[in-house]
Amino acid sequence: MKEKIVDYIESNRDRFLEELFGLLQIPSISARSEHKEDMYKTAEYLKKSLLDAGADSAEVMPTDGHPVVYGEKIIDPSKPTVMVYGHYDVQPVEPLDLWKSEPFKPEIRDGKIWARGADDDKGQLYMHVKAFEFLVSEGELPCNVKFMIEGEEEVGSPNLGKFCKENKEKLKSDIILVSDTTMIGQDAPSITTGLRGLSYMEVEVTGPNRDLHSGLYGGAVANPINMLAKMIASLTDENNRITIPGFYDDVIEVSKEEREEMAKAPFDVEKYKKEIDIDEVVGEKGFSTIERTGIRPSLDVNGIWGGYTGEGAKTVLPSKAYAKISMRLVPNQKSEKIDKLFINHFESIAPPGVRVKARKLHGGEGYVSPTDQPAYRAASKAYEEAFGIKPIPFRSGGSIPIIPLFEEVLGVKSILMGFGLESDAIHSPNENYPLWNFFKGIETIPLFYKHYSEMAK
Amino acid sequence: MKEKIVDYIESNRDRFLEELFGLLQIPSISARSEHKEDMYKTAEYLKKSLLDAGADSAEVMPTDGHPVVYGEKIIDPSKPTVMVYGHYDVQPVEPLDLWKSEPFKPEIRDGKIWARGADDDKGQLYMHVKAFEFLVSEGELPCNVKFMIEGEEEVGSPNLGKFCKENKEKLKSDIILVSDTTMIGQDAPSITTGLRGLSYMEVEVTGPNRDLHSGLYGGAVANPINMLAKMIASLTDENNRITIPGFYDDVIEVSKEEREEMAKAPFDVEKYKKEIDIDEVVGEKGFSTIERTGIRPSLDVNGIWGGYTGEGAKTVLPSKAYAKISMRLVPNQKSEKIDKLFINHFESIAPPGVRVKARKLHGGEGYVSPTDQPAYRAASKAYEEAFGIKPIPFRSGGSIPIIPLFEEVLGVKSILMGFGLESDAIHSPNENYPLWNFFKGIETIPLFYKHYSEMAK
Repeated sequence: MKEKIVDYIESNRDRFLEELFGLLQIPSISARSEHKEDMYKTAEYLKKSLLDAGADSAEVMPTDGHPVVYGEKIIDPSKPTVMVYGHYDVQPVEPLDLWKSEPFKPEIRDGKIWARGADDDKGQLYMHVKAFEFLVSEGELPCNVKFMIEGEEEVGSPNLGKFCKENKEKLKSDIILVSDTTMIGQDAPSITTGLRGLSYMEVEVTGPNRDLHSGLYGGAVANPINMLAKMIASLTDENNRITIPGFYDDVIEVSKEEREEMAKAPFDVEKYKKEIDIDEVVGEKGFSTIERTGIRPSLDVNGIWGGYTGEGAKTVLPSKAYAKISMRLVPNQKSEKIDKLFINHFESIAPPGVRVKARKLHGGEGYVSPTDQPAYRAASKAYEEAFGIKPIPFRSGGSIPIIPLFEEVLGVKSILMGFGLESDAIHSPNENYPLWNFFKGIETIPLFYKHYSEMAK
Repeated sequence: MKEKIVDYIESNRDRFLEELFGLLQIPSISARSEHKEDMYKTAEYLKKSLLDAGADSAEVMPTDGHPVVYGEKIIDPSKPTVMVYGHYDVQPVEPLDLWKSEPFKPEIRDGKIWARGADDDKGQLYMHVKAFEFLVSEGELPCNVKFMIEGEEEVGSPNLGKFCKENKEKLKSDIILVSDTTMIGQDAPSITTGLRGLSYMEVEVTGPNRDLHSGLYGGAVANPINMLAKMIASLTDENNRITIPGFYDDVIEVSKEEREEMAKAPFDVEKYKKEIDIDEVVGEKGFSTIERTGIRPSLDVNGIWGGYTGEGAKTVLPSKAYAKISMRLVPNQKSEKIDKLFINHFESIAPPGVRVKARKLHGGEGYVSPTDQPAYRAASKAYEEAFGIKPIPFRSGGSIPIIPLFEEVLGVKSILMGFGLESDAIHSPNENYPLWNFFKGIETIPLFYKHYSEMAK
């Protein structure tokens, strides 16, 4: 089958890219209300793509937020059903001045596709559409296929839980197949077996009821920025451990044996530092870099603002300061519990002279994907055939809050076949996706269908 | 003379306001390069105002930055010369959404003029133009008058030192008269006898060379916002004292007697807290609120920014974080020395994994104005006649960096007759200036000329 796929890709290469570029050109930024129309446009584009690729039916289904695209091809109800999950929404693009080419004018340079969403997740998602097209057009489809493509992943999938509950019968499947993660390298394929959870907050610190003159008041009135800085600083200690009481209570300490196993994954810390141009890696004392992102929680300020931020000097003692603060959680830490611990703690450490509010923006649970399920074994075999190398099971630091929700609501496990690279700069300026990865994904996916259909019988 | 002034104001009240509104309508924001044309427009407006008010000559004099407006009326070289200093530039207006009326469309509500610059310094400055007009038109001018009105006070007067040096002869005078400060209240006139110095910095913290995904990297890479928060937090200790080594070395400890004298000034801390809606005043341990802004230095973050600050949640570990940090200094602390102490200290406390840069944006020295000089006695008498109350000598927390420079370059003392109120919200949204203060200023100023000319003979 592999040669047939390679031939098919070779013959349709330009068309595949042209179609993907059409998808990448629509600025489907879910966090920005001004892009509401673009979300519908993108959903319609994908509906047509699914029908063109061979789906029996496809529809744009409304939710309380951005719509979900659903499509399916049922060849035989007695055969296994694979449901592909992906998302058509993308992250905001600021700061725009750091992009070398425009985020919504995709182009190819140095063997890579450059655009917002090139990897996350339009590029990875579209591999599935094209792999499906191959299977249908060549008469090789061995099982039933469903597609559920949402438009709110980058804002925490606020409406997908409800959507799944309301469409439980329609979404019935044996495995959920997701490409929204990275692999270690082009020569080191990997399958993501763990994801971190997320608890994402916005905090507001209010001092005086209006901006004051820092000369007339400075030294006598608590400055909300200074106070916010003190509060943020106190959230981690000198060992880079998070100081919120109870934060680590549910963290499962990974065994020595499993940590030794993890340490065998190919990882070059010097290369890692060089790639992002830092002098030192910094994190929780007693853990390696891979452990810090794989099996340990973290706390990052994702944004901060307050006072005068324009050109020149303005001598203001501002009324308010804000920050977005998120915590990555490990499996067994519950996002809602952490939300509460954070909010209670943060409001309790408000210094004199200011008022503090914290509220949740979004969140989700961590996830562990077992390596002894048929889907893992099928995926492993598919990678081995396509790449010539057996893939490594790998715990990622990222979060896909919907994955644990699928298990909870639909009772279905997910398999995370990510083809991205860490250098793809997802969520950053100059997001990109190597052509090699895009086509290698299209090559690997049909092999998964083949092996999974046999193993899951 | 007082009644004559009151009559003159009464007869010309509407015209005075109309002229001031014309001045307030020009958006002369010195910090923003796009307002360069507006600066010239404002300078020309003032040149015409001075000529209309009776100046022998007036001119717009170029500098390397925004121009200076100079005008004079010399009645007799053997008589004393008063030079009025003011500034026609204003602070930026952000955040715009907090203004109740547009900053450059002045209007009168509740007996106050609402506009950017209504007080600082267009309103206060224009009182002098109208007081001068009264003295000339009524044949009451007792001395020579010069006007020097600059356009860069809000950005630290970078070119005025050079301007003074190059025009030393032209600017020769016996006293410099300035209205750019506040008084304690409408029923508590005061003369500012002290100003704090300023050292204003911008700092930049750089972590990785690009924005990273906080899931994939969070916990393993130093986050520049978290690090900036830790650095800012460390700049003050639990007693709200500044921790920069050597910072307090040149601070003159004010004597017990002088502190007792200061404590007699009318000050109601409950009213102060209520007016700006704070629960507690916060500042250096061991000092009162008046002392904290009058005789003690302070450190405020005037602005902070980094990462994602838009709507919704973006899981970014940003490449950079920035802050504007300023210190108010007391007389005898040298601004340049503090600049160096700050920069060296701040760069030295850079945590592992980030790079830190600090640079000076602007600064100036503190100032003490003696109460035993003729100008102080003349001003005191003028206030007493106009207000019916003897004014209080008062040390302000603000800075007018040019005042100590005048003494250094021109060898001339300044007298600070400020008619603003703390509630005028200068540098903030909804800047305002009560009509009462505007007209009371025009009434007081000619009395100063009269008494000063007699006392300085």
